[in-house]
Formats: sequence, C-alpha cells, structure tokens
Amino acid sequence: MGDPAGIGPEIAAKTFANAKAYEECRPLLIGNASIMGKAIAITKSDLKMNVIDKVEDARFELGTMDVFNLDVENPDAIQFGVVSAVAGDLAFRVVKTAIDLALSKEVDGTVTGPIHKGAINAAGHHFSGHTEIYAHYTKTKKYAMLLAEQNLRVIHVSTHVSLRQACDAVKKDRVIEVVHLLNDSLKRLGIENPRIGVAGLNPHSSDDGLFGWEEKEEIIPALEVVQAEGINAEGPVPPDTMFALAKGGKFDGCVAMYHDQGHIPFKVVGFNWDEETGKMKSVKGVNITLGLPIIRTSVDHGTAFEIAGKGIASPDALLLAMNYATKLYSTKNL
Amino acid sequence: MGDPAGIGPEIAAKTFANAKAYEECRPLLIGNASIMGKAIAITKSDLKMNVIDKVEDARFELGTMDVFNLDVENPDAIQFGVVSAVAGDLAFRVVKTAIDLALSKEVDGTVTGPIHKGAINAAGHHFSGHTEIYAHYTKTKKYAMLLAEQNLRVIHVSTHVSLRQACDAVKKDRVIEVVHLLNDSLKRLGIENPRIGVAGLNPHSSDDGLFGWEEKEEIIPALEVVQAEGINAEGPVPPDTMFALAKGGKFDGCVAMYHDQGHIPFKVVGFNWDEETGKMKSVKGVNITLGLPIIRTSVDHGTAFEIAGKGIASPDALLLAMNYATKLYSTKNL
Repeated sequence: MGDPAGIGPEIAAKTFANAKAYEECRPLLIGNASIMGKAIAITKSDLKMNVIDKVEDARFELGTMDVFNLDVENPDAIQFGVVSAVAGDLAFRVVKTAIDLALSKEVDGTVTGPIHKGAINAAGHHFSGHTEIYAHYTKTKKYAMLLAEQNLRVIHVSTHVSLRQACDAVKKDRVIEVVHLLNDSLKRLGIENPRIGVAGLNPHSSDDGLFGWEEKEEIIPALEVVQAEGINAEGPVPPDTMFALAKGGKFDGCVAMYHDQGHIPFKVVGFNWDEETGKMKSVKGVNITLGLPIIRTSVDHGTAFEIAGKGIASPDALLLAMNYATKLYSTKNL
Repeated sequence: MGDPAGIGPEIAAKTFANAKAYEECRPLLIGNASIMGKAIAITKSDLKMNVIDKVEDARFELGTMDVFNLDVENPDAIQFGVVSAVAGDLAFRVVKTAIDLALSKEVDGTVTGPIHKGAINAAGHHFSGHTEIYAHYTKTKKYAMLLAEQNLRVIHVSTHVSLRQACDAVKKDRVIEVVHLLNDSLKRLGIENPRIGVAGLNPHSSDDGLFGWEEKEEIIPALEVVQAEGINAEGPVPPDTMFALAKGGKFDGCVAMYHDQGHIPFKVVGFNWDEETGKMKSVKGVNITLGLPIIRTSVDHGTAFEIAGKGIASPDALLLAMNYATKLYSTKNL
C-alpha cells in the first residue's frame, strides 16, 4: 500500500482493477481496508474488497482486491498529502508484514509502494528507506538496489550517503560485489552473458589520473578481477557518456559509483512530463533490491503528496514492478 | 576546424555546404586548406575553397568555404583517427587564432570544433580544454560553461576537477557567481525573468542534513542572496529530479554542482544512438562559455576518432553552435 497519505493506495487500487495484474501472478494487497476503500472510491472503480488476515483466505480474482488488513486506531485521522507519524507507522507495518510473509514463504515475492522517510522516522522507525528495512529484517549484509527502465538497468556502489562519503565508498571489493550482484540479476532477468558497463567516479574517469585516483586504485583493479572470472564488464567508462550509451543499448546493465550518477539518467529517461499542465504526469521505473533472501521490487517514485487523493497518479510503475517480481520468481532456481 | 585527425574537418565541410549556415551569419573557417580539401572530398560535396590569410578577403558565399589558412609543415603526416602532437599543435593554433581574431574584432564571434586534450598536451600546450584556453588568452577569471540542448540549459559550479575537489568547490560565492552568469546569459538568449533551478550537491539535497552539509552552509545562503536580488531561482532541488523536471520545461536553466551532475542528463538527452549499427549516430548539444569578453560557442561532442574520415559524422551540433553564437551576438548590447 505504501504510505496511506501518499499516492500508494490509489495506484494500488488502479493496479488491482487492471487485468494485467492478474495475468502473471496472484496479487494480494497488504494495507488497511478503510483506507483502501477510500482509494477505490477516489479512482471511481467498482473494485470490491475481500478483507482477510490470513493469506490462505485470498481469492485472487480480478474484480476483487484481497486486502490483508492491518488495523489502525483512527484511519480517518490520516489525510492525503499530510506527513504524519500515524501514517508512517502504518506504512512501516505494511512493509514489515510483507517481509514476514515472504520469509515464512506465505507469499513468493513482495512489491512495495512509496513510503515517506520523514513519516516512518516520526513514528520511531529509524530507517532511511525500504532497502534498509529489508536488509535489517532479513539480516542481509551484501545488497544493492537495481533500477530498471527501458534499456537502463543501474546498480549503485553507494546510495544514501553524502557525496564525500560516496567517494570514500568506492572500494575494489565493493565494486566487485556489485558487479557480481548485477551480473547474477541480469541473468535472472533472462539476459545471457550480460554486457556490463562500469562507470568511473571522476569526470572523464579522471582522464588517466589528471583529476582523481579512484579509477586507477580501486575501479580498474576490480574490473581486472571480474574480467578474469569471465564477466563481460567494461570500464571505467566516462560517467557522462556511459548512461547515454546504455540508453542506446550498448550495455545490459550499468554500475554507478554513487546515488545521483545512476539516479539522474534514470529519472531523465523515466519521468513523463505533461507540458500542458506543467506537472509530472507519471514516473516509470522499477527498483529491485538484489542480494536479499526474498524477492522485493518497488516503484521508484515517491509518495507524491502534492497529487495524492486526486486519482490522477499513474499505476504504470507498480504494474511494471509486479512484472519484474514475477520474472525474478520464475527464474529463482537459476 | 578542431583536431584535424578527428571529425572536426568533415563536420565543418558539411556545415559550410549547408545553406542554413549562411542564413544568419557570415561563416569563416580557420584551419588548414590541405586538410579541408581532404574533408570536402570525404563528404563527397562540391564545395569550393577560397584560401585566405586575412579576414577581409573572405567572400561569405554559399558554395565556397572561406578558409583562413594556417600552415602545417607536413599535413599528410596527419592521419584520421590517430592522436598526434602535430595534429594537436595545429588544433591549438586554430583556437588561438580564433581568439586573436575575436579580440581584435576582426570576427564577431567564435565557434569551436572538437579538440583532443591528449594531442594538445603532447604538443606542449598544457590546457585541459577549450574553455581554459579561452579564459587564459582573454585573461578571464570568472567564467563558466553553459550546455544547451532542448529544454536543458546547464551551468556548472566546477568542471574538470576530481569529484572530491568538486565537493570543496561548492562555495556560496561561486554559486552566486554562476547563478548571475546563467541569469544574464538566459536573458541574452531571449528569455525574460528566467526560471532557474539550483541543484543540491548530495543525494536528495542531503535530506535536511541527514547526509551532507553543503546545502545548508553554502547553497541555501547563496540562494537567499540571489532571490533577494529578484532572481527567480529555486533550490536546492534534489539532483536526481531537477534535470528530469528541467527536461519537462519547469526550469529555463539549471545550476549543476559538478561536471557529471550536469553532463550526464545533458548527454542522455542529446545523444542519438543508431540501434541497427550499434553506434552513436550523432550528438546534439551546444557548449557556450559565459563570462568571456568575446563570444564562444562549441559543439559538445568529442573528436570521435573511431569514425573520423568516414564522412558519417553529423554536423547538427556545429550548426546549432553557430546558431547560438549568432543569437548571442544579436543581443550583445542587452
């Protein structure tokens, strides 16, 4: 469901009303029935609800959303577009329940909607995002997020740290680790012998050491290791051309050295802007956490509080995230 | 002309053979006649040459390229696709001549083709690029490059320094300086009261100080100054959404905190990939140096040695760079 004050409930309502959602998998919503009722009304669909508290009671029928219900004392206190601890606590419990159901194998994979970091922290849950919650409760040390949209599939050496700390995080062992995670996941997504581009850290990959040393000391040694293992990895590719090349189809996957190096091209490609209204129309793109013992994909957009409750948010990213989760499940034994 | 071993000569030949080049300005090529003769042959055009050594001898007639000739001892020693000191020295002298002609007001503006940093340095000219050459010979201290392509117009707080040094370069005074340069230049490009987006340095603009402090200590204080001056500047905008928003039309110009923050989205938008051949088909985008006493625009692509001499490189970026130079000249008294 995501944060109940954001666009999560309404994009979930639109997704469950869409036949595509039921074509490849058996979807189950984890959230609150009262809030989902409102979201269904907002989207003006005739979707019905089957409110349950055990997965085995789900019917998985198009036209009826199975809602695994988590109680909230006063759901009416949650208002669309308003950050609150009540909303953050519910959003957090939704994620935690998804993780628990996956760990106990009651569900085969999990897909997350947008949550608000401020809200979950206000509720006393000190995490910087979904990925960190999943890592914590699945006791995972080696993990990374993969962003996927069109030809771009990007994994990061670091994410939610300052840019100065991100420079420090560019270490040979970590680069090797993310190349391995990326290579394995691309194979699971059906790509044989994936072509992997590894970016430099500095502009022009430091121009042979003119500005910066991380390419020579950390990235090139990592590339030598993975190339010797037979992985089809290339680099360090100058960051400003790598993503343009990847968008064109030169690489199946990219290693970004820090958060914005990967997120900037990803969002430039995935965002969909409405010139008439001057608003963001939709955001495509899926976020996959690699390295976990359970499957987790997510929309890559935020809670979009400014349009929450209006029924105009697009469910495209959520449908795509479900599609990726299903794909990962179908190849889980590879 | 750019580096004679790159695609510079052939895109110049294509440009001068194009009627568009003569519609708004009177173009003159600075280069070597022997090399330009080869480039014209490669592009299979029937362009003629008027070889001159004084600007006043130029005819500015479509069909005849006026070539301001710089001698080379052995032009046949220069081979397409091969980095050499001979080629680098000629490329450097071409740029230096353009600057001199502009400073003496014999030409009204200058447009540069791609040069190769390794080649000019091999020839003993120690500069990291065009911009630094222009700054040096025009004795300019406060300058910046503006990249322009579609809706994206991007200026940088720093460029060719390591990412660690780029973090150090994010200073209040420099941010104010580039906002001023950007605001002035957007007005000169015909935009009234330009809407300017100023990016953060850290992911999510540090999420209110959770990771990084430069937003609070340097960028926000700079924004307060320029906003008080009446400049329509907004920020710090999270870097990963700012360029997507700008692409959509939310900002007339963007301030990037470092080289790749601005170059990555710019190239993702401007690069044109040929899926059939698996090669880069063309690169659009113009690079304008702001703050100089003379006009200088440039293609933003490189020498493309791998396709040099084949006649397939696109002149689009060069035509666009000439168009921007003309626009800047027409508003130079604003």
